[in-house]
Formats: sequence, structure tokens, C-alpha cells
Amino acid sequence: MQTIVGVMGAGRTLDAPARAVAYRVGALVAEHGWVLLTGGSACGVMDEASRGAHEAGGLVVGVLKGDTDDEASRHVDIAIRTGMGDARNVINVLSSDVVIALPGGAGTISEVALALKADKTVIALGWEPGAPLRAAGADLLLLASSAEEAIALVAGTLARRRH
Amino acid sequence: MQTIVGVMGAGRTLDAPARAVAYRVGALVAEHGWVLLTGGSACGVMDEASRGAHEAGGLVVGVLKGDTDDEASRHVDIAIRTGMGDARNVINVLSSDVVIALPGGAGTISEVALALKADKTVIALGWEPGAPLRAAGADLLLLASSAEEAIALVAGTLARRRH
Amino acid sequence: MQTIVGVMGAGRTLDAPARAVAYRVGALVAEHGWVLLTGGSACGVMDEASRGAHEAGGLVVGVLKGDTDDEASRHVDIAIRTGMGDARNVINVLSSDVVIALPGGAGTISEVALALKADKTVIALGWEPGAPLRAAGADLLLLASSAEEAIALVAGTLARRRH
Amino acid sequence: MQTIVGVMGAGRTLDAPARAVAYRVGALVAEHGWVLLTGGSACGVMDEASRGAHEAGGLVVGVLKGDTDDEASRHVDIAIRTGMGDARNVINVLSSDVVIALPGGAGTISEVALALKADKTVIALGWEPGAPLRAAGADLLLLASSAEEAIALVAGTLARRRH
Repeated sequence: MQTIVGVMGAGRTLDAPARAVAYRVGALVAEHGWVLLTGGSACGVMDEASRGAHEAGGLVVGVLKGDTDDEASRHVDIAIRTGMGDARNVINVLSSDVVIALPGGAGTISEVALALKADKTVIALGWEPGAPLRAAGADLLLLASSAEEAIALVAGTLARRRH
Repeated sequence: MQTIVGVMGAGRTLDAPARAVAYRVGALVAEHGWVLLTGGSACGVMDEASRGAHEAGGLVVGVLKGDTDDEASRHVDIAIRTGMGDARNVINVLSSDVVIALPGGAGTISEVALALKADKTVIALGWEPGAPLRAAGADLLLLASSAEEAIALVAGTLARRRH
Repeated sequence: MQTIVGVMGAGRTLDAPARAVAYRVGALVAEHGWVLLTGGSACGVMDEASRGAHEAGGLVVGVLKGDTDDEASRHVDIAIRTGMGDARNVINVLSSDVVIALPGGAGTISEVALALKADKTVIALGWEPGAPLRAAGADLLLLASSAEEAIALVAGTLARRRH
Repeated sequence: MQTIVGVMGAGRTLDAPARAVAYRVGALVAEHGWVLLTGGSACGVMDEASRGAHEAGGLVVGVLKGDTDDEASRHVDIAIRTGMGDARNVINVLSSDVVIALPGGAGTISEVALALKADKTVIALGWEPGAPLRAAGADLLLLASSAEEAIALVAGTLARRRH
């Protein structure tokens, strides 16, 4: 069974630095031999991370809100069509072995919270989650300030689990 | 169609003051003629708010994680058995016309975030949501410091929608 | 906790005799003091059964496909908005103590099958389920040829469970 | 985006001929370069088809009922953990471009019905669906009597869609 790393974050249009980070995270996930999982939409962090992983030769799973591929990123290899709207956020985090969360809105926060609820390690990359999420997450919620640092935390988490 | 007010919050055992607030919120929801909706479990805010509404003669809907009533509060009148675990959090907030969120953990935060994502007004009662949720919620996220104040904000929200 | 009877069937426009049966089933559910649960749409069996229960003074729960009430029957009292499309069929049958299935299409067949999978008694009213469903259902799948007969089978099933 | 073929069927222990067919279907799906999707359990058609595809060098997606891999087939490459029980049946069929249904029980029938509801072509391999499913499915429901014939029908369906 392959290791899946979920990458979450803003669904809206990103500025250039945010796009670069999302792309870089996706590329590094692929270079480590992990499968990338995102919400699969053709916008924001989902699209850029998928493009990064795809162009680095990785496999990209998109867990879609819709019941068709109409709004799917063209960098998705495996489209899981749920037709469930935001209820698919739960599937995103359960299916991920570790979650990296870039800055985002309410959807991203819901995924961070659902991941912590499911006892998943979440790496907040480039943002401060605030007191309620920190209290809810305790040791499961880690902070990173660069794509490389986030990936190192993923690798460390996966290694600890194996031992 | 009846007006439904969702009440979310900690699923663990509450201390006496927290229990009193949850009970009071449930009772006030019922006294206003609204249907109470919770996650339906026999613990924490869900159980106390349901007891409050039930004893005030109200109708209580519990949207359960499980596929049976085994973990349901005995104060639930209508049990919606989802068998979907935390994916039912989405149903909780979509089915509520307004959401009141008492202090809680990751599950409660996910419900606040999902409610804001769905353009629902959320009233945080007795806690400070922190910067990420405040930014995500903007005008939809209101704060209250007592059950009475929360209920007044619900009434105001419902009245504005009617006009 | 109240007893919930689920009524499933065709979502398309019904002819006059089919409408009369659906209405009658809804009315009888209400007259027995049971809560009626349907898929909540403003068409077909869902709408007619809801109208029947509503006009007989009963309580009607509609578990909606959508995330708003836009397509909901106006005879629904409690709208459970799932935003999950046909995945809500699972919730329909899990939440029902017994299921009555009137003639319908693929959606109705899926509900019958999901109900049998969940060990629910299903009463097929006015149609022949065919060999695969009969084999899958065994003793859980009952046949009725009138609304009154279906309701008697519901009552018998509920009584047996109590003993 | 890769083409996904869903293979459904009995979750219980299979006799030798049924195992051989399920294995053969999985192997042929992989040999055609399609991704195999199943419900992911370590039993019945799901397990055998996954083994067949895996040993033929294909990629296997398992959409699991559970929120962990505890009951997953060891031939699954990509585990989509839903935690949603039978509601994941909807995801199985929405995510498949074509569905092959081997003989099975209530779960399999629900997947056939949900697939037809979602306008998917379903190939019933080695069983007779009966009048209600035939009426619901019309031109979408095809019959095959061997793994090879089922695969030919999949190929034909995919080819027609491309033109």
C-alpha cells in the first residue's frame, strides 16, 4: 500500500509566492515517492500542488466534491468523484497518512480540525493556527515555514510510525 | 418547514458551569419554538443541550455518527443515523439555520469551519475562535458571552433573513 | 425516541392511482403516531407521502440530496440537508425503523438493497422485487398489495422487535 | 486522468470458479491499462480482483468502508479511507468510468442501482439482474457470461464515449 500525503490549502487564486510554495510541496512529495492527495479542484493550492507532483513524475489523487470531473485539475491522475461536497473533506484527511496544510479559508481549517480529530499529524506551513486548533491538536499539530521543512516533518512522522 | 438551531460543542464530560450553559441554551432554543439539532451523542454539550430542550418541551434532532442508536442521547426525539462518522458534521451545519458553538475540541472547530464555508451564521459562545476562523468567517462569525446573548443573536439573524 | 417509518419510491411524476397509494401510506403512517421519513423532494412518492402524513397531522422528516431546501417538498417539517446526493439514500434507510418501498427506479432499488444490507425490514408495496433482491433479503423482504397491508406489516415488525 | 474500471461483487468467501472469474477480471483490467477500483475489503470479489490486477502489474484503488486499513485487501495500492460504511458505495460507482458487477448480495445490488442512477454503464457478469434493475437500467445495463466478454463490453463502452 502506498504512502499518501495530503496537501490542503486555499481554493481561490493564489499570489505568485503562494503558488510557488504549493508547487514546491507537490514536487517534493512526488520526489519522495509518496502519492499526493488533494481536493482535486482546478484552482488554488490543489491545482498547483498537483501540477508540481505531476511534473515531478508523481501520482496525484484528487478527491472531488462533485460527481463529475468538470471542476477537476488536469493534473489529477486518479479522480475520486464523491458527489458529497465538503463531506469529502473527511475522506481527504482519513486517506492521508500525514497532512500538510497551507494557508487557506474555512475549508482548509475544517480539514485541519478533522485531521486532528482523526489523530493525524498536521503540518501547518506558513501560517499560525491560533489557540483553539493548537489546544485541539497538541502534539499532532506541527509548524513549518518552508516547503522543505514541511517535507522533513512528514518524513520524520512517517519514520517514527514505522518504528 | 421548522426552524432548526444547531448547538455544537465538546463531546467529553463537562464541568458544572459548562453543563449549565449547554442546558440553558437547549432550553432557550425550545422556548423560542425552534427545533434543536445536535450531533446526538450521550455526552457533553450534545447531551446537556438536548436535555434542556427536551425538558422545555422542544423537539430534538440528533444527527448520529453511528448507524445505530447505541451512543445516542436519550433526550433525542428524532435520530438521524448516518453511519458516516465525522462526515455527519457537514449535515449538522447544513441542516441548521443558525449554529451556536460552545467551547469544544477539534470536532467543534470543524463544525464551525464547515458552517462558515456553507455561509451559515455561527455564534461562538464563551470562547475566542482565533485569527484564522475570524478571517474565514468575517461577518458570519459572532461572539456571545451568555446563553441569553447567543439566543438573541440567533433571533436577530433569523429576523434579518425574513426581511 | 420516536419511531420512524421510511417511505421510498419513484421520484418522477406519478399517475393518479400511484399518487393515491403514496398519499394513503403517508396518512396511515401519521395516524399510527410514527414519524414519516422520505428523501424530501417535491416530486413523486416523496411529495405525496409527505402530503398525506402532513395533512393527517404527522411529523415529516425529509433527508434532502441538496444543501438547501430549493427542491424540498413543502410538506416536509424537518429538513435534513445533506449535500451528498444519492449517498443520502444510506441515511434514509439507516434512520428508518422499517422501510416501505413503492414502485420506483434505480434510486428506489438502491434504497431497498441498502436497507436489506443494514438488516432493516423492507416492505415492497405493489411490485415484485425479482430474484436477486429476494435472495439478498430473505426474511427481511416482505410483499404487500395495499397501503393497509403494508402498514399492518410495519406494525407487526415493530411489535415483534419490542418483544 | 486515468480510466477507472470498478469491479463489484460478493464480499463473502467465494467458491473456486467464482474466485477464478474475479481474479481474471482484475487481471484483464490491468492488462488493458485501466485502473481497478473496488470496495477494498480483504474478502470476496474485492480481494480476488485486486490480486488479479496487482499480479498483472496494474494499479488498484480500494475505497474502504472504514477509517483505517484494518480490513483492507493487501493488494490495494491506493487506499481511500472513507469511514462512511455503505455510503462509500456511491463513491465507488461515481469514480468508475464503467462498472462490472459479479454475483453478489444486497451491497452489490445497491452498487448496480446507484451506478445506473448515475448514468454509468454496468456489466452484469454471470448473473441475471431481474426485471426491476433491467427496467431501471435500460440500455445502460449489459450482460456478459465470461470475464473476456465483460472486458470487451468495457472496451466498447469506452470507445463509444471517446467518439
